[in-house]
Order: sequence, then C-alpha cells, then structure tokens
Amino acid sequence: MTKFMDVHHGMAGITDQQLRDAHDADLAIQAEEGVSFEHAWADPAEGVVYCLSEAPDAEAVKRVHERAGHPADEIHPVTLAV
Amino acid sequence: MTKFMDVHHGMAGITDQQLRDAHDADLAIQAEEGVSFEHAWADPAEGVVYCLSEAPDAEAVKRVHERAGHPADEIHPVTLAV
Repeated sequence: MTKFMDVHHGMAGITDQQLRDAHDADLAIQAEEGVSFEHAWADPAEGVVYCLSEAPDAEAVKRVHERAGHPADEIHPVTLAV
Repeated sequence: MTKFMDVHHGMAGITDQQLRDAHDADLAIQAEEGVSFEHAWADPAEGVVYCLSEAPDAEAVKRVHERAGHPADEIHPVTLAV
C-alpha cells in the first residue's frame, strides 16, 4: 500500500456539501478497489481539490474517482511523509 | 486561522532525510509567524512536495518557507475539508 495525493482542477465554487458528497461517493465504492480515502481539502476560490488516500497503486485511485464521477487530473504517489 | 496546502515543484530526488530536515527548519521558526505545519508529503519521482499548515494568512506560510530556505511555488487556502 502506498499513499497518494491526487489533485482535481476546475472545481471553482465547490461547496462544503459538494465536497462531502464527492467524498462519500468515493467511500461508498473504495473497498471494491482496495483504496482508503483519508482526507480531502478544497480551495473553492482557485478551484483545486486535494485528496489523500492509501491504495495498492495509482490505477486503483483513478478507478474510484472515475467511477464516482469526478476523475482526478493528477495522481501522485507520495512515498515520503512527515 | 485557516488551513493552507502549499506546493513545491522541482524537488525530484528528494530524500526522506531532506524532507525531514526541511520540515524541521519550518518547525524551528513557525511560531514566530503564528504558523503550525502539520504534515508534508513528497513524490520524489515527479519532484512535488505538499505541505499542510494552519496559519493566520498565506503571507505567513510564505514567510516561514522563504526564511527556511525553500519557498513555496503555490499556497492555497483550503477552506473546506473532510
């Protein structure tokens, strides 16, 4: 398992409820892909969302976000953390 | 206080020790700027580092990273989180 930081652009104006709904949609199916989404943070003004997850590989993160209806623009394995 | 996600590019090849040293350099001076750095994650292959902090404003985050010798390329107020 590796930690991943994925990034969504073009999310300007995202609301707290929309972020929660999107996160819940990920949580509802993540087990099928072996992924665990831990946190998501949004900058509604610039339209950027960051999601932190633990997953077997980037493809699994990609599949969960695609199936949930909000594909990620970037998926980075963050192999170092403090 | 607001949470901020800041991003550093061009960090390809960063090591675990370098990430820890950089984080420690932030921690050593952050109180002078009223900032609290919580986590940092690095993708050494693509050279991206993400730092999560809590701070009075983006300028304070900017000052800590600059004074510690590793200016951020992006600083985003992440006003929403799950």
